Amino acid sequence: MTAQDPSAGGDAGTETRVFIVSNRGPVTFSRGESGEREYSRGAGGLVTALNAVARRKSEAVWIASAQSEEDVRVARESPDEPYEVEGLKVVLVEHDGEAYDLMYNRLANPLLWFVQHALYDQPYAPALGDDTKRAWEEGYVLVDENFAEAVARTLQAQEEGVAGEPVILVHDYQLYMTPLALRERLGDEAFISLFVHIPWPEPEGWRVLPSYAREGVLKSLLEANVVAFHTESYARNFVRTAREVLGVEADEEKGVVRSESGREVWVRAYPISIDPNEFEELARSDKVLQEEETVRDLPGKLLLRVDRMDLSKNIVRGFHAYDRMLERHPEMLEQVTFLARCQPSREDIPEYARYAEAIQEAVEEVNEKHATDSWEPIVLSMEDNFPLSVASYKNYDVLLVNAVRDGMNLIAKEAVVANEKNGVLILSENAGAHEELGEHALTVNPFDVDEQADALREALTMPDDERARRAEALEQTIRSNTIEEWAEAQLKDIAAYRERHG
Amino acid sequence: MTAQDPSAGGDAGTETRVFIVSNRGPVTFSRGESGEREYSRGAGGLVTALNAVARRKSEAVWIASAQSEEDVRVARESPDEPYEVEGLKVVLVEHDGEAYDLMYNRLANPLLWFVQHALYDQPYAPALGDDTKRAWEEGYVLVDENFAEAVARTLQAQEEGVAGEPVILVHDYQLYMTPLALRERLGDEAFISLFVHIPWPEPEGWRVLPSYAREGVLKSLLEANVVAFHTESYARNFVRTAREVLGVEADEEKGVVRSESGREVWVRAYPISIDPNEFEELARSDKVLQEEETVRDLPGKLLLRVDRMDLSKNIVRGFHAYDRMLERHPEMLEQVTFLARCQPSREDIPEYARYAEAIQEAVEEVNEKHATDSWEPIVLSMEDNFPLSVASYKNYDVLLVNAVRDGMNLIAKEAVVANEKNGVLILSENAGAHEELGEHALTVNPFDVDEQADALREALTMPDDERARRAEALEQTIRSNTIEEWAEAQLKDIAAYRERHG
Repeated sequence: MTAQDPSAGGDAGTETRVFIVSNRGPVTFSRGESGEREYSRGAGGLVTALNAVARRKSEAVWIASAQSEEDVRVARESPDEPYEVEGLKVVLVEHDGEAYDLMYNRLANPLLWFVQHALYDQPYAPALGDDTKRAWEEGYVLVDENFAEAVARTLQAQEEGVAGEPVILVHDYQLYMTPLALRERLGDEAFISLFVHIPWPEPEGWRVLPSYAREGVLKSLLEANVVAFHTESYARNFVRTAREVLGVEADEEKGVVRSESGREVWVRAYPISIDPNEFEELARSDKVLQEEETVRDLPGKLLLRVDRMDLSKNIVRGFHAYDRMLERHPEMLEQVTFLARCQPSREDIPEYARYAEAIQEAVEEVNEKHATDSWEPIVLSMEDNFPLSVASYKNYDVLLVNAVRDGMNLIAKEAVVANEKNGVLILSENAGAHEELGEHALTVNPFDVDEQADALREALTMPDDERARRAEALEQTIRSNTIEEWAEAQLKDIAAYRERHG
Repeated sequence: MTAQDPSAGGDAGTETRVFIVSNRGPVTFSRGESGEREYSRGAGGLVTALNAVARRKSEAVWIASAQSEEDVRVARESPDEPYEVEGLKVVLVEHDGEAYDLMYNRLANPLLWFVQHALYDQPYAPALGDDTKRAWEEGYVLVDENFAEAVARTLQAQEEGVAGEPVILVHDYQLYMTPLALRERLGDEAFISLFVHIPWPEPEGWRVLPSYAREGVLKSLLEANVVAFHTESYARNFVRTAREVLGVEADEEKGVVRSESGREVWVRAYPISIDPNEFEELARSDKVLQEEETVRDLPGKLLLRVDRMDLSKNIVRGFHAYDRMLERHPEMLEQVTFLARCQPSREDIPEYARYAEAIQEAVEEVNEKHATDSWEPIVLSMEDNFPLSVASYKNYDVLLVNAVRDGMNLIAKEAVVANEKNGVLILSENAGAHEELGEHALTVNPFDVDEQADALREALTMPDDERARRAEALEQTIRSNTIEEWAEAQLKDIAAYRERHG
């Protein structure tokens, strides 16, 4: 199945109405200088991936949060009639401002993100309490119900002349309570899936959450027909969590959980991927070609990392590993430049501000220690410049992905496909991508600084034939499971589920 | 089975030679002022518990590390002949000083303790590397082999005239590599068990360790015949960890793991307990009666906690919860005193020094905020004074045990048995004791400060009849599984294992 064949998609969709529900949508609207409505396409791997689903289901309606003022105007103009843009049908949902803030800034990004990536310093944090409960009840749950309400309203508006039960594909950790709210509104016949794009920890990890949230999330997810993840191990952890927190029947081998109401819930892994064509096109674009000049000016071999400055990305230990490698192998001085593309992220969360500082301190420390007149060991680049990232993807000799934990890490896939140097991938065993790519990468334990130093050295001095062999295998692996296969696998399972459950 | 009947112990022991192996032993030797050898009994729940096993097996030899200079002299005088003291046969093992330091201060207490209690701030710590590997190879493994060597030597010395294959009961997280070293020396017929007295996390928790340590520990434990824990959930986590890290066959329901060499390893939970008689006697002792006067002078109801100042004990959040309770219920001011018995611990580990500071800051903050002329809200008592602890056990109205994680928490059991006030137990759902006592305690999520504040208020204002009912049930539960039953259950399983495997 290739991108040239977007209409083939099993027979699941011929008479179904498909809804994609996610917090961020495919477009954001704004007002141009002369007052006309403009839009920009959403960035990020999830939007690209969901576009692949939407392309296969041309009637699909995409429901997302109104983010900008102009988004809110669009939402008010057509609260249930999809707005057509870029060949997509979009419904934007206006949320209560305070509720959205509580959901996003109090519940999803600090609490759920931290729990699911195991980022808490547990002797001290979190300190949960009544504020948490309020953020849950008056924020998270309300916003998620608001999404369900928008789906129900849109469905009702198109009711006449459209046959078949709806298929609703809900996405990610901001929307865990939406399946329950959908089931209450649409009844047993609607097909609902929820895709979790971040790690799903083992049951004990979930014990950090207050019981109302822990049980609330699980009960809601078991109102879906399919709960989906990027890896087999997240899927298995989910089955165990459901069994241990709710005491429901669950078959770990088959990936089936029986909800309290008797529904069979399929728990599946669909490793998300990329559209290689998109990156090939991008790689040839003028903007990227221009940025390549900057990248090629960097002395020596190119060691690259590209990450948001997130606590889960392990950026500081990466610099310490590089430092140790230079200490132990002084012959590497001036022979390599570490380009660290680190985008600012969630700067208003204190833990993130502190982490951004720690990153900059580590860079200064390493540079002060090793720099020469003609050589800066680490170039820290924090600008928002996607063409520069793609230019660096094309040219790296070594790519470091050493995340403490990462749902998938799509950068590993994007960069490998764009790379033209048989670059070596160093990959954390705790990145979701490791299930697919680990075999052809240099695997590291993200907590072991010396192991990472050794891997850097090995990668930077690897013989050409081994580089070529590994790079070829990595690219083959990614091309055999692109975003098209990702969408296809889910649509096939939907068809199979409906076949089985009539 | 009661303490008055120490000889009954199944038929496992009539012709076996039993060895108890633990880092700390039942006695420590010193020199008196006039130069004669003196000894003091080891303190702590583990020593009490193992004494119960030793009493049942009068021929048992207890092998432990030489800790003091005089211990080393004893070790050198009789490296394989047990030294008889207090009716026990003790062999002290002299370790290489540097190896012991690496084992204890680099591997067991920082790394294993932190991993097993999930105490790391993972975006920053640990930073593992070659130092870790050295502490493993030149410290931990060597010390554990040294224990096995001492067992083998002692066995050989007593070889003549003693029949039956040896039974070797190895204890706790300092000795994970001892089962392998024992098996190499003693062959397949020796019965070996390893008892883990701290939490055993789920497989992902173990991924923090370098693979050589992760796999090394598991391979060694699967050289034992029984691996034992305090709770069913630790036992289940162990089965999963073995399966996932080593890929061995494992039956979670039955608690059986098949080692690579084909051995059937039983994975069992034996919740450790106390000797109630010991606490009753203590409670009546002059020293305790004297300390009670201090305790009774404290104004209002007595809220108590007794803990080492360990990062796992959740002492800081406990004070914050108390603060919130006082804020919300000003009628409680002067009506309660929080006696916090916090013993200094591992002060040379920086994280512990920082935690001890945080504890003292929290106490000052709460006292400054709420104190009156005649009332200090929190009395922080850090002196090493066991009679004072027992005096406070007798007199508390509410006992707070809110650990982030705790293998068992024997204080909950000791205090309940000694208490004379129908005191209420507030118990963390993450303490091992919760599996047995949770039903009759007020359960709290250790991360939820407001929930703990509510529990404090509820406990301090609970009607007398409910206090009595709960206290009675708690005491019954503890008395139905004392240290005698704990020892008995293990000895029975040893007999059953040997019966089955001939």
